Amino acid sequence: MAEINAKNIGLRGVTVADSKVSMVDGVNGRLIYRGYKITDLAQEASFEEVVYLLLMGRLPTADELKATVDFMRQNRPLPPEVVGMLELRDKKADTMDVLQSAIAALSDADPDLNGTERKDRVQSALRLIARTASVLATWYHIRQGEPAPTIDTEGSHAEAFLKALWKKQPSEQEAKLVDVLLVLHAEHTFNASTFAVREVASTRARLYPSVAAGVGALSGPLHGGANSRVMQMLREIGQLENVEPWIRKRIEANQRVMGLGHAVYKTEDPRAQILRKVAESTLKGTRDQRWFDLALRVDEVSRRLLQEIKGIALYPNVDFYSGGVLNALGLPDELFPAFFAVSRVSGWCAHYIEEELAEAQPKAALYRPRANYTGRSCGPQGCQFIPIEDRGAGCPCGDPLNSCEEELAAKAI
Amino acid sequence: MAEINAKNIGLRGVTVADSKVSMVDGVNGRLIYRGYKITDLAQEASFEEVVYLLLMGRLPTADELKATVDFMRQNRPLPPEVVGMLELRDKKADTMDVLQSAIAALSDADPDLNGTERKDRVQSALRLIARTASVLATWYHIRQGEPAPTIDTEGSHAEAFLKALWKKQPSEQEAKLVDVLLVLHAEHTFNASTFAVREVASTRARLYPSVAAGVGALSGPLHGGANSRVMQMLREIGQLENVEPWIRKRIEANQRVMGLGHAVYKTEDPRAQILRKVAESTLKGTRDQRWFDLALRVDEVSRRLLQEIKGIALYPNVDFYSGGVLNALGLPDELFPAFFAVSRVSGWCAHYIEEELAEAQPKAALYRPRANYTGRSCGPQGCQFIPIEDRGAGCPCGDPLNSCEEELAAKAI
Repeated sequence: MAEINAKNIGLRGVTVADSKVSMVDGVNGRLIYRGYKITDLAQEASFEEVVYLLLMGRLPTADELKATVDFMRQNRPLPPEVVGMLELRDKKADTMDVLQSAIAALSDADPDLNGTERKDRVQSALRLIARTASVLATWYHIRQGEPAPTIDTEGSHAEAFLKALWKKQPSEQEAKLVDVLLVLHAEHTFNASTFAVREVASTRARLYPSVAAGVGALSGPLHGGANSRVMQMLREIGQLENVEPWIRKRIEANQRVMGLGHAVYKTEDPRAQILRKVAESTLKGTRDQRWFDLALRVDEVSRRLLQEIKGIALYPNVDFYSGGVLNALGLPDELFPAFFAVSRVSGWCAHYIEEELAEAQPKAALYRPRANYTGRSCGPQGCQFIPIEDRGAGCPCGDPLNSCEEELAAKAI
Repeated sequence: MAEINAKNIGLRGVTVADSKVSMVDGVNGRLIYRGYKITDLAQEASFEEVVYLLLMGRLPTADELKATVDFMRQNRPLPPEVVGMLELRDKKADTMDVLQSAIAALSDADPDLNGTERKDRVQSALRLIARTASVLATWYHIRQGEPAPTIDTEGSHAEAFLKALWKKQPSEQEAKLVDVLLVLHAEHTFNASTFAVREVASTRARLYPSVAAGVGALSGPLHGGANSRVMQMLREIGQLENVEPWIRKRIEANQRVMGLGHAVYKTEDPRAQILRKVAESTLKGTRDQRWFDLALRVDEVSRRLLQEIKGIALYPNVDFYSGGVLNALGLPDELFPAFFAVSRVSGWCAHYIEEELAEAQPKAALYRPRANYTGRSCGPQGCQFIPIEDRGAGCPCGDPLNSCEEELAAKAI
């Protein structure tokens, strides 16, 4: 049996496919979508423009962008059956479970699914991206026992989302802040959720079940839970004067400061820099400036103390600032990963199309790795099957659905 | 940038983790669940016994099996909200989309999800395994415009499933046939769907979103569609006297005979042998013997002609016989993958528990492979962002949501 190569653990060093969708250059702190720097895109392009870029491989002309925006607008409203399904859910349901279930159900109302052209895939993707935001905004109200909001078919994606969420028109600046958040989170090459989407797509599954797998992966706290942990930390710290003693204690106890450092970026996460700047100007003078000021102070103090006490440089990642911003937008912490999905669904769709249409190498490779069997073994003939009436006593703990650790170990010869 | 190692394609040669759940020995045609040969399990153990084995790592005592059967029986009925959600679906919805969505929704009604003991995971798994069968049987009726069936809380899992499907009591032999089918399809180490479950589980996502990802992967025709293609082939052949000319023509045209050969088994798939034997005795003398006789003839003729014309030995895989059997049970072809899921959910749950509780090496490794960026590149500074008003003409085809192949290639410098 092949041994697990240390570098295979979690597939870390393993290059599994080519991709033209995006590139992360962790050493230089660069994130590239289809050739373009995230810093340019966040400043110059709308989310819809970035969606076009991700799905089509190039920036749209004015006419192409208009067609994209129009298509997304028209497709924003949810089929009434899906709203009905949201209304049937337990009000305490996990929002990511609700989103996953709704996306799988949205499959029914997509007239382009059986098409065979690239354009059919792009239309399905635009429809799904438009509706994912509507699912979150609708569920936000339904879970509070309120009626489903009307979904606007005018304005930008960010604007319509906020309008559905707040049931009132957002300011231009507020919509811009959400637009930037959406652009920043849209794509990040092969991470756990994107790889889940591609794994499912590699079986030639359709768009919706593939993206639903991505939602499942993003529901895991190791993947989609970082910004809510930052928000928890800020709440725990509570006020500006607590920052220095709180952070010092934490660092001296060798505990992590949430939102600092990144698995890939060795320098500052470029998204964090952009978000700090945009959030600073949008939140200035509002009641939400408080959380943002607290985040700024934590950022400054942590960097200083980490250098001073540990001699290491750690920079804030995108999650560090997104928590405070989402909180300012009125989203409760437990909905943060779903907002992440509202943006990332665009990258998932781009990867789905690339995988399904084999637009990068290798072609048609269903992902099926090996496992190294380390379980019970009784030689080439397998273990002897003992009929139930002849089996000895069960687990010493006496609980029929429990297995003592020692017992599991002893039986696995 | 790292190049894709040829053996990494589709992760084929790559060992990503240890696992104690099962082992496939393709060379000798052996499939082992937790140390036990599939041939012994299919003959001697019920599906519930195998479920216990997969989840708990050892065969149950009589008391343990009784507790397992009782727990599954009590948990078979679906929450009324989930039945309501099935009733809201389009009658033409894809059954795998329905199943994926329902499984994500079943998460709401699991009181053990927030538990931290191994036993909590096992109970969630037993509940989900019990209910997956109920979802399929319920949807089977709802999609035909009939009322949802009553789910029996007596009898075996196989018996209750058939009773809900047929709305009448199956014979002991019929229930046994389904039981064997369930045992044979329960587990098959790291395949595309199981790996999707583990990929999602590696983010510490909960059981339901992880298993829902597996359903997504199984919905892909490259993974879950083989037995319905066998059934299509049998229908196309139509009758015994057509077998030889049909197969000869196919082989001479270098086309595949569906259900022959397997990516892993180099000799006969042990599951195919068992299924042929059990199906033969169950279907003898029924009106469904016809499809089975046809399959037997295709098996015999294909082996002979492949040897004669191509000089190669190919053996039938489990899908070769399961299509005819599922057809005999009254399942339409498009529901075959969902039946596969009703069985495989047990293996998925075993892998979920192993991954989540790190019961095999490596511990806590979120799966995140690398991609090799082959997209547009304009050097270290990225491509220059051109404002929308200054961008040139779009795709020569003039369609705003289309990209000509040549254009895509030209733009990706």
